[in-house]
Amino acid sequence: MKAMQIVPTAVERLIEELGKLPGVGPRTAERLAFHVLKGDPHKAGLLGAALSDLHAGVRACRTCHNFAETDQCAVCTASDRDRAIIAVVEEPFDVVAIEKTGLYKGLYHVLGGVISPIDGVGPERLEIASLIRRVSDENIQEIILATNPSVEGESTGIYIRQQLEGMPITVTRLARGLPVGGDLEYADQITLGRALQGRQVF
Amino acid sequence: MKAMQIVPTAVERLIEELGKLPGVGPRTAERLAFHVLKGDPHKAGLLGAALSDLHAGVRACRTCHNFAETDQCAVCTASDRDRAIIAVVEEPFDVVAIEKTGLYKGLYHVLGGVISPIDGVGPERLEIASLIRRVSDENIQEIILATNPSVEGESTGIYIRQQLEGMPITVTRLARGLPVGGDLEYADQITLGRALQGRQVF
Repeated sequence: MKAMQIVPTAVERLIEELGKLPGVGPRTAERLAFHVLKGDPHKAGLLGAALSDLHAGVRACRTCHNFAETDQCAVCTASDRDRAIIAVVEEPFDVVAIEKTGLYKGLYHVLGGVISPIDGVGPERLEIASLIRRVSDENIQEIILATNPSVEGESTGIYIRQQLEGMPITVTRLARGLPVGGDLEYADQITLGRALQGRQVF
Repeated sequence: MKAMQIVPTAVERLIEELGKLPGVGPRTAERLAFHVLKGDPHKAGLLGAALSDLHAGVRACRTCHNFAETDQCAVCTASDRDRAIIAVVEEPFDVVAIEKTGLYKGLYHVLGGVISPIDGVGPERLEIASLIRRVSDENIQEIILATNPSVEGESTGIYIRQQLEGMPITVTRLARGLPVGGDLEYADQITLGRALQGRQVF
């Protein structure tokens, strides 16, 4: 008799599905499944329903392609945002990260990824044309390129800057430098180099 | 505008429910929720259903109170188990742990916890009477007390040994000693003391 045969199918199935989550190995999956099993069936049902209903409750904003519950997202419909600035990000999750700083009051534009020839993602697969259209149609003064500081994020930013050339707007990008709380000694060469080049008056 | 308002309710709800799992903090919950959201809705549905259907698919074996899919568990109904030995464990999860060793061929008896006066759990709340009945009715020769090596586990073992006194069976318990792969230097005093007392001919 093998070990797993004594675990009921319903539990095995849950362990298998939990194990597909990132950072959840077979042991963690088993521990989580057993925890849920020990607990209240009603609680398991709440988590189950939250997962099953997730995608139905999330749409893309027709203006900026951020997460939305209705036709437009909470940022686009808010009355207190600066409608002259658009931060261009890769994913809706980046919007969440920027909002958490509490320091940005402008609008967003979610590209839906980055240009990546290796993965067959060209500019036409991203929300770049719709960004250019917004810059033409709306009264935009600044575009902040807030793509990731990765090779793909940088090239996507460069591509968008080229597309925006000649338009009467300022194009900026997020500062590169030492992460706050980081240690100069352990900073990688490129980051330290960028921090030097971008040094600010103190 | 606060950060979390831009996250759709369906996502917030999932983050909240995931955050109730052990070892899952708010950041991990967010990361997991975003991962599920990025993925296939069908996959989210599979995990959701596995959670919602979990408790309905698991019953307690009427003989040993282990997990079962039907009236009796896989161990009790198996044809190749040694029906003269019962390992007494606290939880069904302990059955899984012992089965994984592949070294045990006997039956089990799941107590459903340990005697713990602080938590108001007396012997009558556990499956102890049903164990005594099994020892009387079935042809049992050995009872292995496999409760946890904790204060409560030990006292529960002692209580059961007392209840079994006078019955024509051998009562054993799991060996105490150094964990395999452990380091003598870092073993706690009590474990090392037990390993000395229980030293084996080599």
